[in-house]
Amino acid sequence: MKALVYHGPGKKSWEDKAMPVIQKPTDALVKILKTTICGTDLHILKGDVPDVAAGTTIGHEGVGIIEEVGSAVNNFKKGDHVLISCITSCGKCDYCKRGMYSHCEDGGWILGHLIDGTQAEYVRIPHADNSLYHVPKGSDEDALVMLSDILPTGFECGVLNGKVQPGSTVAIVGSGPIGLAALLTAQFYSPAQIIMIDPDDNRLATAQKFGATDIINNSTVNPVEKVKQLTGNKGADTVIEAVGIPATFELCESLVAPGGTIANIGVHGKSATLYLEKLWSHNITITTRLVDTVTTPMLLKTVQSKKLNAKQLITHHFKLSDIENAYDTFQNAAKEKALKVVLANI
Amino acid sequence: MKALVYHGPGKKSWEDKAMPVIQKPTDALVKILKTTICGTDLHILKGDVPDVAAGTTIGHEGVGIIEEVGSAVNNFKKGDHVLISCITSCGKCDYCKRGMYSHCEDGGWILGHLIDGTQAEYVRIPHADNSLYHVPKGSDEDALVMLSDILPTGFECGVLNGKVQPGSTVAIVGSGPIGLAALLTAQFYSPAQIIMIDPDDNRLATAQKFGATDIINNSTVNPVEKVKQLTGNKGADTVIEAVGIPATFELCESLVAPGGTIANIGVHGKSATLYLEKLWSHNITITTRLVDTVTTPMLLKTVQSKKLNAKQLITHHFKLSDIENAYDTFQNAAKEKALKVVLANI
Repeated sequence: MKALVYHGPGKKSWEDKAMPVIQKPTDALVKILKTTICGTDLHILKGDVPDVAAGTTIGHEGVGIIEEVGSAVNNFKKGDHVLISCITSCGKCDYCKRGMYSHCEDGGWILGHLIDGTQAEYVRIPHADNSLYHVPKGSDEDALVMLSDILPTGFECGVLNGKVQPGSTVAIVGSGPIGLAALLTAQFYSPAQIIMIDPDDNRLATAQKFGATDIINNSTVNPVEKVKQLTGNKGADTVIEAVGIPATFELCESLVAPGGTIANIGVHGKSATLYLEKLWSHNITITTRLVDTVTTPMLLKTVQSKKLNAKQLITHHFKLSDIENAYDTFQNAAKEKALKVVLANI
Repeated sequence: MKALVYHGPGKKSWEDKAMPVIQKPTDALVKILKTTICGTDLHILKGDVPDVAAGTTIGHEGVGIIEEVGSAVNNFKKGDHVLISCITSCGKCDYCKRGMYSHCEDGGWILGHLIDGTQAEYVRIPHADNSLYHVPKGSDEDALVMLSDILPTGFECGVLNGKVQPGSTVAIVGSGPIGLAALLTAQFYSPAQIIMIDPDDNRLATAQKFGATDIINNSTVNPVEKVKQLTGNKGADTVIEAVGIPATFELCESLVAPGGTIANIGVHGKSATLYLEKLWSHNITITTRLVDTVTTPMLLKTVQSKKLNAKQLITHHFKLSDIENAYDTFQNAAKEKALKVVLANI
């Protein structure tokens, strides 16, 4: 089969690789139908995730068809259409029992990280009963690829951790795909205002189309002053960090209202300064989270019932065999006006 | 009357001052029976709280007798014994309606800060109906002085924000009065372990007497290694910061388990480093809070029902007129083995 293989910082290739095989009775083998590229894959390619070994197939999102299941898999059989979760979970360890699948003692984020991933014609999924979901008949599979990672991440790490409430004020720093995923799912809870902050006018225009009530281009406008002005001088009840650098996290600290929450989604490579001399008395909460994907079944229902238009996150389509061009497009997202790209194994 | 007046950094004196008078119909005038000194008063004296004007009477804790009430005060009358909350709250603004009395738009922490406080023979209490509590007949008034600030602070900012649960593991960094207040009130929720960390052996011995299951002297033992060893290599579910310097906050970041909470109580004068490159994926929560004193009525019941032995926090007694000696003792707390000192207006 063919797979996109990481060969160390800056190096990848679409190449022949041995077909994966069932290794444990709880494994399933899935033929990929659709997959996508995540910002995290770009981090891997830059060498920012050093525990990805050279020779690993990357990718952790996708929809496929079950090719074979191990003897202990009960929920799935050959031919089933499945959504692959970016998080593998045994369902049995202490962390899984608390719904912290991201910290599963025999899983977590391992796909395209510690084991071969989904940017390939076939993938092995460990703990298949807990890590796959049935695709409802008649589903738009492109839309469902958005449920592997980006939508549960925006929703769980941003919206749920950020405690978005009816009538509340939300500020989202970063209007890339993950910030937009938070924007879309924040609207489940009917906040009064969703203020989107980004230096790219095109992304801000998309945010407005997706439901932002206010947009701030922070390359030309002071976002702290503007958010104060928009919130009666109080700041935002929920501030969502969707970038992952110290400057944007520290901006969130300046935007949060007394009693508010900063919900971090960004993948950070560096420390930030925590302004405790100001914040110690402001009754604030800061949360971090690696997505647990506990809300995947719920999000599936919101897509099925058309409460959530997942497909609008997709801007580009490629054949899976054309994945290297897809990477070029995704890496030049601003220029290409790219959000998510969908790769079809056809 | 006599009052302890702040005269700028390093300067205070017990001196004659005009009696306070009712200024608004919602005010009450209280004759102080008992008061105490808070670590925050020492910060004021050092000049760390620059919005305290020279000429202000300091102190924000106490028990007293109502001397006079304004025409709009309904819950109290002359002669009532009352507990004074460190937080003044109107009960009517947006913040008060959310239980965030600390951020009351016509109150918050103002006593002994922005208006004259309780280290005096008489004090004016604004919004008396919301800021005073009836002292139950037969109460030990020394014990109740611990309910003005230290016990609700340890409980709300540490225990409630820290989400202490039955069977959970709690680490408290700092075994001074406020850390001990958190230790005492954490036991309401039956955690499995309470690990106390401090460089002072005498304070750690007190912590053990007060119910700590484990103690770590971090001047001689690596607290990160020791907490890992005590928690099956996971860290603590709740970590309470009860000191207020960058090093202790950063220590808390190293002690918290995946899925855990760092609850800050400390009053910080400097920024700390937030190790997001490690914590972004650990599903942790960090909280800050200025005490709201919303739990004062509940804590009163725990004292009355002897679930909480508040009095054991008191190590020294002085006459109110001897307050300057009381400050000397409190400022040399380690040497004097002092926790809280009670000053009686006799």
